[in-house]
Amino acid sequence: MGRLAKAASRQLIRLSQTEKNACLESIAKNLVANAEEIIAANAKDMENGKANNMPAPLQDRLLLTKDRLVNIAEGVRQVALLDDPVHEVLGMKERPNGLMIGRKRVPLGVIGIIYESRPNVTVDAFSLCFKAGNAVILRGGSDCIYSNIALVKVIKESLKENGVTEDAVFLLEDTSRETATRLMKLNEYIDVLIPRGGAGLIRSVVANATVPVIETGTGNCHVYVDASADVDMAVNIIKNAKLQRLGVCNACESLVIHKDIADAVLPKIIAMLKENECEVRGDEIVQSFDEAVKPATLEDYKTEYLAKIISAKVVDNIDEAIDHININSTGHSESIITRDYESAQKFLNEIDSAAVYVNASTRFTDGFEFGFGAEIGISTQKLHARGPMGLEALTTTKFIIYGSGQVR
Amino acid sequence: MGRLAKAASRQLIRLSQTEKNACLESIAKNLVANAEEIIAANAKDMENGKANNMPAPLQDRLLLTKDRLVNIAEGVRQVALLDDPVHEVLGMKERPNGLMIGRKRVPLGVIGIIYESRPNVTVDAFSLCFKAGNAVILRGGSDCIYSNIALVKVIKESLKENGVTEDAVFLLEDTSRETATRLMKLNEYIDVLIPRGGAGLIRSVVANATVPVIETGTGNCHVYVDASADVDMAVNIIKNAKLQRLGVCNACESLVIHKDIADAVLPKIIAMLKENECEVRGDEIVQSFDEAVKPATLEDYKTEYLAKIISAKVVDNIDEAIDHININSTGHSESIITRDYESAQKFLNEIDSAAVYVNASTRFTDGFEFGFGAEIGISTQKLHARGPMGLEALTTTKFIIYGSGQVR
Repeated sequence: MGRLAKAASRQLIRLSQTEKNACLESIAKNLVANAEEIIAANAKDMENGKANNMPAPLQDRLLLTKDRLVNIAEGVRQVALLDDPVHEVLGMKERPNGLMIGRKRVPLGVIGIIYESRPNVTVDAFSLCFKAGNAVILRGGSDCIYSNIALVKVIKESLKENGVTEDAVFLLEDTSRETATRLMKLNEYIDVLIPRGGAGLIRSVVANATVPVIETGTGNCHVYVDASADVDMAVNIIKNAKLQRLGVCNACESLVIHKDIADAVLPKIIAMLKENECEVRGDEIVQSFDEAVKPATLEDYKTEYLAKIISAKVVDNIDEAIDHININSTGHSESIITRDYESAQKFLNEIDSAAVYVNASTRFTDGFEFGFGAEIGISTQKLHARGPMGLEALTTTKFIIYGSGQVR
Repeated sequence: MGRLAKAASRQLIRLSQTEKNACLESIAKNLVANAEEIIAANAKDMENGKANNMPAPLQDRLLLTKDRLVNIAEGVRQVALLDDPVHEVLGMKERPNGLMIGRKRVPLGVIGIIYESRPNVTVDAFSLCFKAGNAVILRGGSDCIYSNIALVKVIKESLKENGVTEDAVFLLEDTSRETATRLMKLNEYIDVLIPRGGAGLIRSVVANATVPVIETGTGNCHVYVDASADVDMAVNIIKNAKLQRLGVCNACESLVIHKDIADAVLPKIIAMLKENECEVRGDEIVQSFDEAVKPATLEDYKTEYLAKIISAKVVDNIDEAIDHININSTGHSESIITRDYESAQKFLNEIDSAAVYVNASTRFTDGFEFGFGAEIGISTQKLHARGPMGLEALTTTKFIIYGSGQVR
């Protein structure tokens, strides 16, 4: 499978933009045309899920309906509309010896995606990887296997309709742990692995893979309210960052408050959070503002709650705030609320996270909000891609050199 | 050590370019000023090397003299002169909601370098990592330990002279395999590992590390002589690529010849190689040109000889040439010799290597030749950095976002 995918990737690089977009259009059309068959396969997964007492929110993520398929197809068409990153040449320059040297953007080759039980990821991940010229090996969750088989069948048939090799996509139908582990060590054939899912899945891939991995993100995101902050802006941004959507990696999980503004801002923040049934866990100073505030442990400051709980700490100065955040955050997104020029620049320079904000909600860390038109995930590692990853993150570059007989 | 290096990396990001360059200047000065002490330490390593029957070329690589220290110090001053990549902001743009979003180039953080017995790497690697704002943990070979201790002592004292934390550099004085393996799994404190050395060292790091690795290069580089090649240019480039320096990763190790030009070019190539005492191992057609040509095995086509041996194969067309190269090369550097426009473009597009040449020697794949002013290694992987790596490869980016109260 690895060998075939590698061979397919060599063919994909020869496809023109028009040919790739025609494939994506066929896939969008065929997903809707084959809705009945896909929904029937999904029904088997749903039945198994119910029999295994799958929690209701997971069942909802697993469910495919006609409407959802129409949306997924629409997503594929959106990917077709994006600018094709492949073959762009960057920074071509002449050297003193007359060699012309530049970088050409090219596909990564073969991408392995390891994910949990969301059938939409099957189509999304394929479309993005394919648009960037890559072959894909998909390893979804066992809970979703019938849906995935049906979806990949449609993708393969659509590729065939367009005269493109079906080996551009493979689905591991064997969802055992052993097969996944073998996939993670297939260095000869897989160029990069992208795990998409919960912290446990990502940890396991990072620990077991010898193939290079792009780690996608858990987010223990912070909002720091500086001494000079606009109080209403601070409350409004914290409300949005914590509560607009709870289960997302760019939600705020921890507050840091400068001591000089604590009296002005903490009662309003705590009142807003209580009103929204959000539990606050704080240090002694935060606790002194409201008896509903529970004590925060060191563990709390490191926790991504994904629930109506938030931790809070009061600091003496911005240096203490930056240190506290750099030590406890997962390197995803942090925001400072300030009116002070120097504080803003210091925070932007010294916070070591993928996205650093001044006076805005952390909820904006997202490929669509950043204007990439798509997102394969949010990288919290530093190599290759950091922050929201669009099509460009699915490419690499090679040097191309035009000579006229030069030797050393 | 990991924790201290991480803490140091947070201080390094606050240093101005002037402060970093002053440290490098002190190091250059002190390397020469402390030459006696360093050479005395090196003498202990040399003595041990001789006692352990270290081969002469390795002894030569290990040896430090006053002249070599002066050269190493000059290298440090060259790094100080390079443009500082840190804090550059790329592509800052406004979003419809008024957010200003851009990418800021920042240090990676803590870089681990695992290398063999070349004391010059200790200083080179430190200078480049430090210039790019990173703390460094060095793990050199046991054969070189006394030299390394002496060199790192000079670096630490020079940092101290400039009021910069000595924790910006650590040397693992315990050179056991166990300690190296622990280093490779220190994900919490090390942002990237760069192995520098032979294929065995690199394989071992890739297999054992959970910290992200930048793989540096073995090179089974190819020269392909297309049907329309200028024969003299082909012979001249092959001579340079194979013979100008034997033990380097960008040397040519394998030839691919279009059948239509075999009669015109192969006798001249074989004669030139024989004249230079270079053994040729070829397929049956190549063998038919000269009885000195030995048969090539499949293994030969995958071998980086680093010696006066070269493999050769005749192909029917450019597609066969490209497939043969993509399957057998290590993805380092390949060159086509051609006068045909379409062949040149096809080769540039379809060869999947870090550097792809038209009508030039593969020997140019090098950070200095490419105009980066320095080189930490040549990456043959596709993530993060590909090809010669200069200072930029030792940085990452983060998104910085200027808002005015935006929420979702």
